[in-house]
Amino acid sequence: MEEIGKKIWVIAEGFIPADDETKDYKFISHETACILNPNKEEAEIEITVYFADKDPIGPYKIRLAGERTNHLRFNDLSEPARLPRDTDFSSIFRSNIPIVVQHTRLDSRRTDIALLSTLAFGQ
Amino acid sequence: MEEIGKKIWVIAEGFIPADDETKDYKFISHETACILNPNKEEAEIEITVYFADKDPIGPYKIRLAGERTNHLRFNDLSEPARLPRDTDFSSIFRSNIPIVVQHTRLDSRRTDIALLSTLAFGQ
Amino acid sequence: MEEIGKKIWVIAEGFIPADDETKDYKFISHETACILNPNKEEAEIEITVYFADKDPIGPYKIRLAGERTNHLRFNDLSEPARLPRDTDFSSIFRSNIPIVVQHTRLDSRRTDIALLSTLAFGQ
Amino acid sequence: MEEIGKKIWVIAEGFIPADDETKDYKFISHETACILNPNKEEAEIEITVYFADKDPIGPYKIRLAGERTNHLRFNDLSEPARLPRDTDFSSIFRSNIPIVVQHTRLDSRRTDIALLSTLAFGQ
Repeated sequence: MEEIGKKIWVIAEGFIPADDETKDYKFISHETACILNPNKEEAEIEITVYFADKDPIGPYKIRLAGERTNHLRFNDLSEPARLPRDTDFSSIFRSNIPIVVQHTRLDSRRTDIALLSTLAFGQ
Repeated sequence: MEEIGKKIWVIAEGFIPADDETKDYKFISHETACILNPNKEEAEIEITVYFADKDPIGPYKIRLAGERTNHLRFNDLSEPARLPRDTDFSSIFRSNIPIVVQHTRLDSRRTDIALLSTLAFGQ
Repeated sequence: MEEIGKKIWVIAEGFIPADDETKDYKFISHETACILNPNKEEAEIEITVYFADKDPIGPYKIRLAGERTNHLRFNDLSEPARLPRDTDFSSIFRSNIPIVVQHTRLDSRRTDIALLSTLAFGQ
Repeated sequence: MEEIGKKIWVIAEGFIPADDETKDYKFISHETACILNPNKEEAEIEITVYFADKDPIGPYKIRLAGERTNHLRFNDLSEPARLPRDTDFSSIFRSNIPIVVQHTRLDSRRTDIALLSTLAFGQ
């Protein structure tokens, strides 16, 4: 089967609203990188997070089994450091094999929710 | 006329909110792949759906007549299996001729609706 | 100056919610193609609109002066035919010189508004 | 390390809702270009803004340090001119080194917020 995807992906937008963490998990404001590994073999992915006024943090290392998706919440990243809330950031994903990355945010700071999504920049 | 589109499209995001199916059809939360077949001839499209923790399901087979669009609700897919609600997924579209795919979700779990849309990843 | 943009753009999503046209113009639900002509010369653009179950309509012909943007509401298209409401469609833009097209919808059927936007597919 | 990004980016959509500027800063309606400079060296970026019926304004000149992100609010641009509210525009970003640009809007004209985001057009 043909290779699908790219090895490098960039999400220039990034922001986790400070939120009431006692909410229903589904509705806690979250910033997500939806990652698909279309290959048979496992992907090794390293994520570096960039900020406005301090050095990048990373790499966050994740593994994604072949033919699986991970809708990764940036909220949940903890090693090497938890990400600050209400703080602008960007991220770069580097994978050892081609993957596809799409960015989604759910914002529930107000009564109703707002959503955004975009394909990340792949190369 | 020149060929427009790509034969492979990936939507890394995918999620159908569990919803009250007695709502007005227009406002039931739905996950949509908007597909345009810009060619004169019919397109044969196969969709495979990927999950976080189980094997992919598919292919879902659809046909799209030439110069027609199908705003395909993932909610409506039933063969080989209906898709689970409140479950993360990704999808890959393979067409025998070039098409264009855009992803849209309407989320009506709260009083007001939220929308997201993005061009899928084509190659 | 280098040429910026593409001559063919596709928006696979398309839907104009049936709406109360007496609303404040800014808040009437609308489907928009934001077009930038980065060139010095005028662009001649032809739009064809595709449907689920009938033949395409078009071309809609527009001209866009050099170094100008047109946030074109599909709601306003009238020649050769006004577009139906609450109807799925797709569109293809063909320009004689490179342009850039981004798709945006504002949906105000409920009390609050919902927004979506994506870069169109360019080639 | 490999070069990541593009030197030219276009956001064909652009609109800053006229808003109550006494709101909480986070919730003032804003139009944002999220810019990542993945390089070690500083980027010099020039932004030109295009309108429907008047000549472009620019360049707005910004500098972005290496390995930093700037979620630039168009609301805050002031030199050579503040941008009008409730006015359609488009923008072109030209950088001396590769960057990545993503477009986001938060609209809080109604009680709840609406969000949109998309990767800009890069070349």
